[in-house]
Amino acid sequence: MKPFIFHAQTSDYFHEKDGVLTVTIMSERDDWQKVQLRHEPDNEEYLLGMTKVGTQGRLTLWQTSFPVNTDRSVTHYAFKLVDSKGQYWLDAKGVHCRVPSREFHFKFNSLHQPPSWVSEQVFYQIFPERFCNGNPSISVKSGEYRLKENTLDVVVKEWGDAVEGHNGTGAAEFFGGDLAGIHSKLDYLQDLGITALYLNPIFQSPSNHKYDTTDYYNIDSHFGTNDEFAALSEDIHSRDMRIVLDAVFNHTSVEHPWFDKLKVTSSGAYDHPGSAYHNYYFFDPDNPKQYVGWKGISSLPVLNFSNASVRDYIYQSQDSVIKHWLKAPYNVDGWRFDVIHMLGEGEGAYNNAHYVEAFRNSAKAENPEAYILGEHFFEATSWLQGTQEDGSMNYYGFAHPVRALLAKQDIAYDSIDIDMLAFSDWLAEARAKVPWLNQLSQLNQLDSHDTARLLTLLNGDQAKQKLALTLLFTYVGTPCLYYGTEVGLEGGQDPDNRRCFPWGEEGSSSWFPFHQALIKLRTERHSLQNGAYLELYCDTETLVFARSLNGENTLVVLNLSQDEKELSLPVWMLGQEQGELVELSGQMKGALIANGAVDITAPAMQAKIFDVVNR
Amino acid sequence: MKPFIFHAQTSDYFHEKDGVLTVTIMSERDDWQKVQLRHEPDNEEYLLGMTKVGTQGRLTLWQTSFPVNTDRSVTHYAFKLVDSKGQYWLDAKGVHCRVPSREFHFKFNSLHQPPSWVSEQVFYQIFPERFCNGNPSISVKSGEYRLKENTLDVVVKEWGDAVEGHNGTGAAEFFGGDLAGIHSKLDYLQDLGITALYLNPIFQSPSNHKYDTTDYYNIDSHFGTNDEFAALSEDIHSRDMRIVLDAVFNHTSVEHPWFDKLKVTSSGAYDHPGSAYHNYYFFDPDNPKQYVGWKGISSLPVLNFSNASVRDYIYQSQDSVIKHWLKAPYNVDGWRFDVIHMLGEGEGAYNNAHYVEAFRNSAKAENPEAYILGEHFFEATSWLQGTQEDGSMNYYGFAHPVRALLAKQDIAYDSIDIDMLAFSDWLAEARAKVPWLNQLSQLNQLDSHDTARLLTLLNGDQAKQKLALTLLFTYVGTPCLYYGTEVGLEGGQDPDNRRCFPWGEEGSSSWFPFHQALIKLRTERHSLQNGAYLELYCDTETLVFARSLNGENTLVVLNLSQDEKELSLPVWMLGQEQGELVELSGQMKGALIANGAVDITAPAMQAKIFDVVNR
Repeated sequence: MKPFIFHAQTSDYFHEKDGVLTVTIMSERDDWQKVQLRHEPDNEEYLLGMTKVGTQGRLTLWQTSFPVNTDRSVTHYAFKLVDSKGQYWLDAKGVHCRVPSREFHFKFNSLHQPPSWVSEQVFYQIFPERFCNGNPSISVKSGEYRLKENTLDVVVKEWGDAVEGHNGTGAAEFFGGDLAGIHSKLDYLQDLGITALYLNPIFQSPSNHKYDTTDYYNIDSHFGTNDEFAALSEDIHSRDMRIVLDAVFNHTSVEHPWFDKLKVTSSGAYDHPGSAYHNYYFFDPDNPKQYVGWKGISSLPVLNFSNASVRDYIYQSQDSVIKHWLKAPYNVDGWRFDVIHMLGEGEGAYNNAHYVEAFRNSAKAENPEAYILGEHFFEATSWLQGTQEDGSMNYYGFAHPVRALLAKQDIAYDSIDIDMLAFSDWLAEARAKVPWLNQLSQLNQLDSHDTARLLTLLNGDQAKQKLALTLLFTYVGTPCLYYGTEVGLEGGQDPDNRRCFPWGEEGSSSWFPFHQALIKLRTERHSLQNGAYLELYCDTETLVFARSLNGENTLVVLNLSQDEKELSLPVWMLGQEQGELVELSGQMKGALIANGAVDITAPAMQAKIFDVVNR
Repeated sequence: MKPFIFHAQTSDYFHEKDGVLTVTIMSERDDWQKVQLRHEPDNEEYLLGMTKVGTQGRLTLWQTSFPVNTDRSVTHYAFKLVDSKGQYWLDAKGVHCRVPSREFHFKFNSLHQPPSWVSEQVFYQIFPERFCNGNPSISVKSGEYRLKENTLDVVVKEWGDAVEGHNGTGAAEFFGGDLAGIHSKLDYLQDLGITALYLNPIFQSPSNHKYDTTDYYNIDSHFGTNDEFAALSEDIHSRDMRIVLDAVFNHTSVEHPWFDKLKVTSSGAYDHPGSAYHNYYFFDPDNPKQYVGWKGISSLPVLNFSNASVRDYIYQSQDSVIKHWLKAPYNVDGWRFDVIHMLGEGEGAYNNAHYVEAFRNSAKAENPEAYILGEHFFEATSWLQGTQEDGSMNYYGFAHPVRALLAKQDIAYDSIDIDMLAFSDWLAEARAKVPWLNQLSQLNQLDSHDTARLLTLLNGDQAKQKLALTLLFTYVGTPCLYYGTEVGLEGGQDPDNRRCFPWGEEGSSSWFPFHQALIKLRTERHSLQNGAYLELYCDTETLVFARSLNGENTLVVLNLSQDEKELSLPVWMLGQEQGELVELSGQMKGALIANGAVDITAPAMQAKIFDVVNR
């Protein structure tokens, strides 16, 4: 049995001033022969003795200070505790019997940190075409134009009609959602408790999803005008809310005037090898009609960032796209960069890290508080060390493990079988490789416009969906609700996951108050926003963790078993020897803490949230 | 119980041609719904179906081909196998129930590979001052000069006298070892089976260890002449042996003419702030007598690689130090770079990766077959991806775990307690993060001039030392014996680990034939040099692994228990359903393989090596 040893980069245990880090650890044992911090100035191991500085319940605290590394932005450290028989090491993943693998050492980026507002938010992702039609006069009209190089008429459908699959009218189906619709629902969203919006792309583009941009400087005319967007953003900010836009800079539409596959202009790259725009893309020198499309999709030609004009346009010049929308009157609060890991100098994402860093630097130069969010479907560790992104769409470290645990499916819809122990380990591994502040700035979602909705994957199983939602709003990272989840909206794979919001049902949905209550808890409790994560108990079916900050302890019990479970929880790990456990989300009777432990009955297939109260 | 799934980057399972990798996996199950390869062109996940290509015993084989990545030198891949209930992934560390953490994916560096001769060698490390005195006329004489800025007379001792500790005469003690001595013992070393030498520094330097260089272009005059070294190297090569030198480029001696703290010249950096050499080091602009010494040691001023003259001198010019000794008539076969991880542009090892890469490129431009070996006391994963080093002194992935397992001490001489399972996991983690060819080129040692000798840490326990030696000569990586180990030479911490070689005892030592036999096995069996590593069995006390190549299977059984152990070994994992297990290193009776398994009795506290023979 490994001893309990704990450290977190929260203000309880961590402090940075003038390049000096002061770190505190705690352990229930105080008979160590050595308590040391390991750090790596000059890439070399140095071990510093730590000083006993106090106690908390049965826990003893040790502290030391050391300078951040000067040759790189990330400082790594870990702790070594030695007794007469062996040694234990503490890293960001846990306690080990030998020096830990370096990727799991605690990491602090002294130069690049996410804005602190992010983890305080509850985000709401809107797919604008399907959220609300606020201005029917600008809605797409049937046959108004054609898609897919003039082969497919746009189709207009009634709000709420079924969406067609990819083999049908796909990206050409329009229901009329727009900015006016979003604007008209801000009261609704605030009532739900939402504090920040993330919109799928809204710039000029022929498709309903608008990932094929034709003009980065203008709102799509079927969504509204730039003035309307400025007014929407102003209203959002006047409500103390935030807005983040989707940046699709890896590729453009074939209809972008630069590419102009439809040959509307006299300077499009596709038909004019001599055009100044030709080198904006990657054409085969031997076959000028052959070009690199994103994932081989010919309608999405990939932009060439080795071209200075592209760099200037997208991020480098003073009115580059990235800077433009961060400025007044738009004042967006951040960017979600689409398929950012694939972007670079052509096929192979050559120099990718350089460009992601450059995007970030461009945005932060305009607004140091801008949120830089990267889209990554898979492990994004290397992008999340602070220098590139503040956070990612946390598929790898949240959505995928939740889906595996509860829906027994992976992202390719293959079967996957993990128990709660493997789930906990997956989460821990994903967290531990990323600096703490970036962990807090990960955007956690259950689903999105790119995945089937979780409730549908769960075959409508409400108990499991509630477990997932409890995790969403209590786990480390910033929660983001995909529109409609709060009224139980279902949907299978893309584009079925983009159904129209069922306005009219929101008042009667039993889901709505469930979400409202969880969001309220998340918004009121700082420990849920920024608190350290401590695992108190885990077996194959049951997980108990605490979020802990400045004396506020929120305890989350997840029981996936078909049976209720008697648990004795070691709240002494939170420095709590007595007091009471009070349920925050329901009616369970308070339970007395005695000698640092508290007995509870975890109901079958339920999640419970508790406050740990001093009495 | 996880299924058996296996892949290795040996010629049995891996093939590269014109930038296309063909990979084979095998599994004892053939009821998979999907067998896929995952790779990451453009940083994006692609899954390729694999084709069934045959069987081996009960094993089924699948194969696919895919191009190496073009945007970076290292290509990552892993395997996904799906059945109706779940999925298994195979990475370089083993089998997992979900997508593996990226650092453990299989890695292949398509541009930078170690020379293939390395893993075929048995190295022997010589600390020249203590190996053999072949020319007494050039030996240091008592009082001949002073060390430590003229405060300490050199001391001459009788061959075999006790060495003093650091608080005594330390680096000033001389016994007279030299190049002529080494030359005179080449027959002896060949008789032992040694094929390659690694010498601690031999360039001009006042100390006995010569890590404080005063002249990079000349052999220390008390060791011999440049001509003698050329003759030694020629003889070594005529015997089909190799030689690697120690390169101390992070710092120089304070007595190097560039620094000249003793003020012998009129241009030394220490006393002449206007000197061209001033910027070779890091002086405090406000206090020109203050400078950066390695680890704060003032006698070892750190070189400044941001200075173009230093770069030219050490690695960039045509006759730079690195190139000079690789050329005729010296023709050294590689460099061991001292404290390479700390080197760079001043304190903090700024730009370290750049310089290590530059050192490598300089050496490989002179001789593409040069071995680039880095000294790292701790995890060296980032230096071992192919682009920087071929191998490291493998303290992290071999010497430290062996010492922890058998001597229950870590490198700081603190107690550590790991069982065989933790040992196996430690080895696996260290291996898996490094491309296979770099794993083979790791220099494995039990001890060195920087650590206490293992036999001494084991309190002379011969059984444990034999287990360690069996590991050294059978494990993945290139074995290197520290001089004298083969005659049971003991020694505590530096400098006691640098005792004189006890000439005269070598004929009677029972250790010598034990080493000779292991070395012969290592040299004769290609599977031990380059074979895949397969773990067949592991519990808290016992480990059984195979090295496997082109049908040759070497099986190693390590039993740390005080009791003998009955084992049934699953040799079907090697494709072997019948045949015989024949001991290679002793007299155990052959054991019949039936139905893919073989029963053996592993003797208490012993290692056994077997051949798996088709009958």
